[in-house]
Amino acid sequence: MAKQRVITLLTDFGTSDHYVAAVKGVMLAVMPEATLVDITHELPPGDILAGAFVLAQALPHFPPGTVHCVVVDPTVGTDRRALAAVYGGQTVVFPDNGVITLVNRSRPLEAIAVVRDERYFLSPSLSSTFHGRDLFAPVAAHLAAGLGVERLGPQPENITLLELPEPQRRGDAEVLGQVLHVDRFGNLISNIPATMLGAPVESDRPCEVFCGDRPVGPLRPTYAVVERGRPLALINSMGLVEVAVNGGSAAEHFGAGVGAEIRVRLA
Amino acid sequence: MAKQRVITLLTDFGTSDHYVAAVKGVMLAVMPEATLVDITHELPPGDILAGAFVLAQALPHFPPGTVHCVVVDPTVGTDRRALAAVYGGQTVVFPDNGVITLVNRSRPLEAIAVVRDERYFLSPSLSSTFHGRDLFAPVAAHLAAGLGVERLGPQPENITLLELPEPQRRGDAEVLGQVLHVDRFGNLISNIPATMLGAPVESDRPCEVFCGDRPVGPLRPTYAVVERGRPLALINSMGLVEVAVNGGSAAEHFGAGVGAEIRVRLA
Amino acid sequence: MAKQRVITLLTDFGTSDHYVAAVKGVMLAVMPEATLVDITHELPPGDILAGAFVLAQALPHFPPGTVHCVVVDPTVGTDRRALAAVYGGQTVVFPDNGVITLVNRSRPLEAIAVVRDERYFLSPSLSSTFHGRDLFAPVAAHLAAGLGVERLGPQPENITLLELPEPQRRGDAEVLGQVLHVDRFGNLISNIPATMLGAPVESDRPCEVFCGDRPVGPLRPTYAVVERGRPLALINSMGLVEVAVNGGSAAEHFGAGVGAEIRVRLA
Repeated sequence: MAKQRVITLLTDFGTSDHYVAAVKGVMLAVMPEATLVDITHELPPGDILAGAFVLAQALPHFPPGTVHCVVVDPTVGTDRRALAAVYGGQTVVFPDNGVITLVNRSRPLEAIAVVRDERYFLSPSLSSTFHGRDLFAPVAAHLAAGLGVERLGPQPENITLLELPEPQRRGDAEVLGQVLHVDRFGNLISNIPATMLGAPVESDRPCEVFCGDRPVGPLRPTYAVVERGRPLALINSMGLVEVAVNGGSAAEHFGAGVGAEIRVRLA
Repeated sequence: MAKQRVITLLTDFGTSDHYVAAVKGVMLAVMPEATLVDITHELPPGDILAGAFVLAQALPHFPPGTVHCVVVDPTVGTDRRALAAVYGGQTVVFPDNGVITLVNRSRPLEAIAVVRDERYFLSPSLSSTFHGRDLFAPVAAHLAAGLGVERLGPQPENITLLELPEPQRRGDAEVLGQVLHVDRFGNLISNIPATMLGAPVESDRPCEVFCGDRPVGPLRPTYAVVERGRPLALINSMGLVEVAVNGGSAAEHFGAGVGAEIRVRLA
Repeated sequence: MAKQRVITLLTDFGTSDHYVAAVKGVMLAVMPEATLVDITHELPPGDILAGAFVLAQALPHFPPGTVHCVVVDPTVGTDRRALAAVYGGQTVVFPDNGVITLVNRSRPLEAIAVVRDERYFLSPSLSSTFHGRDLFAPVAAHLAAGLGVERLGPQPENITLLELPEPQRRGDAEVLGQVLHVDRFGNLISNIPATMLGAPVESDRPCEVFCGDRPVGPLRPTYAVVERGRPLALINSMGLVEVAVNGGSAAEHFGAGVGAEIRVRLA
């Protein structure tokens, strides 16, 4: 049962060095039967918000019992804590720097501990620069092999969370949000959920989306309904308002990135 | 038996977002014992020809029973169909946009169906932008777990295929082709098969290869027989005429890309 | 027992073509139960030193019995030999071009053979450009499945090793080394081991590190003890002197790369 647990990895290590392999080697030494899945290793170095976004979007698709090992850790070696937490049947091991923020918002917290018991570390003496290898990897593998989170250490009194801008409703007719993530295609993914725009969003419904001051048009059903190279807005696969360019990059087209204003004006 | 089936993934999703992980999570939820292998996620966004080439080159090396999940899908959410087909003992699930063209040419088609039965989808209501997660991933996992292609839906009356330029023989002395793919090293891989040049190609046989108007030299046995930085032509590991630069990029050296003319003049 | 062997892959193939998938398909056809782990495929094309560094750093973290398939092979198709060697309970299959140098220095050689027995190749006739697929992959899979190295061919009389600059002690007060590797963060990793600086390195110990002529400061415990954007030196997770920039790239900051001089002046 515990023998087919999945461990995912989400880091900013890149894939050109030995860092990811060291982490996987340590995991496989603890739990040879683990199924290892890369979420990504291409987070911009130290970008906690990007990590928080990608984790929250990936996690819901994994089976119960999955362990997620998250290492975007710009303050490694300081007194920032390592935490392990169970959210809705899945476990996340992560540095307590806010990377859990979006998962913490969307799923019930079932158990949490400060990772302190050195028996589950690679060795009692941690390096001060590579806790991914020395702490997060072996702890994730022990958890995947069946160890309970409560065995790792005491419950923390709080969790570090990012303060993120929230989408705002302006009267009945407007919702004001921000770009939360720019994906590899250059799509501008906002923090405005479809649910904030009222009941089931129809295609071509009478509304207008703006990126900053520039009009994008109504919400469309999919990319290919506009000509190649033309911008559009839609509700994406995450249920969020997205500004895109069919066959191109909205980030380039609008010169916009994370934090840029996205507005939906309802008819 | 069915329990050790391999599922490969071939997409243009990139590896910096949650898209690949979402697909893998969905597959593992359906079939936890699957062995997942990335072919590539670095196809240029929407580049159906690149997908067709990479798929046709990778597929023959996988064991019988392998399921290939191909998602290069620029018209996702329109009325383009999803197909599942068995070619020579391996199964491919793909959007019907031509990405199957080169596999379809080289292997016997044994079974094919339009993917329509919603019981094998992630949920009956597909998103309109991420069929990789909602349709291709769960269907691939069900196929890997033993589901027959014919269970997915009716047989299609036709398959969408790319119209690709064919290498031409000009009299006895010349074969005219095009660059079909540029690989990560900058090698210019043509559509001219060694078999078109006559019986077993000898090294340094009396022939001359041209890239556009520029002479490259005779066919060589391997890269390192010319000095570093010097161009050469050879029959590559795919059995195709390739123009390369030892330790460098032929694409840069010749300023050439997909579609560029490659000529072989036989003595 | 032999059924849970790990095979790692370390290449300069990149991940945008079919090359890695072809290698994995061949491995899985030989040994379907193998656990495949990518070390990296992003070595700069033909960069044997980078391969030697990454291999030596990754290998020690893998469990006994792991087989490492290393293909950075700029002289493929010439008379360079393929070797298989057991170092401290792990096996490496590699082209005899020096890529084994740093593993060979740090671990006991237990067995070695020239890979010659064609029964373990993909087919008796090798391509002259893709021994990764035709030779290294199937041989690695047979080794992972339990084949002894001595079955592959005769013992070689020597191994090709890179001549690398060694860190030099200058009197009691200085150690002079070179940058051996630049990682994805732009960290400058030198060849100076902590052990050469005397007993356990204390944080902020009285010493000064130089990158070329430019002072970097004392050895620090970790990145985040200096302000963001500021340079620092530390003993990294590999036990080597490293010059870094907190939240930035030391390679850019100092305009330095592999071969640049790193000096430690002890008080």
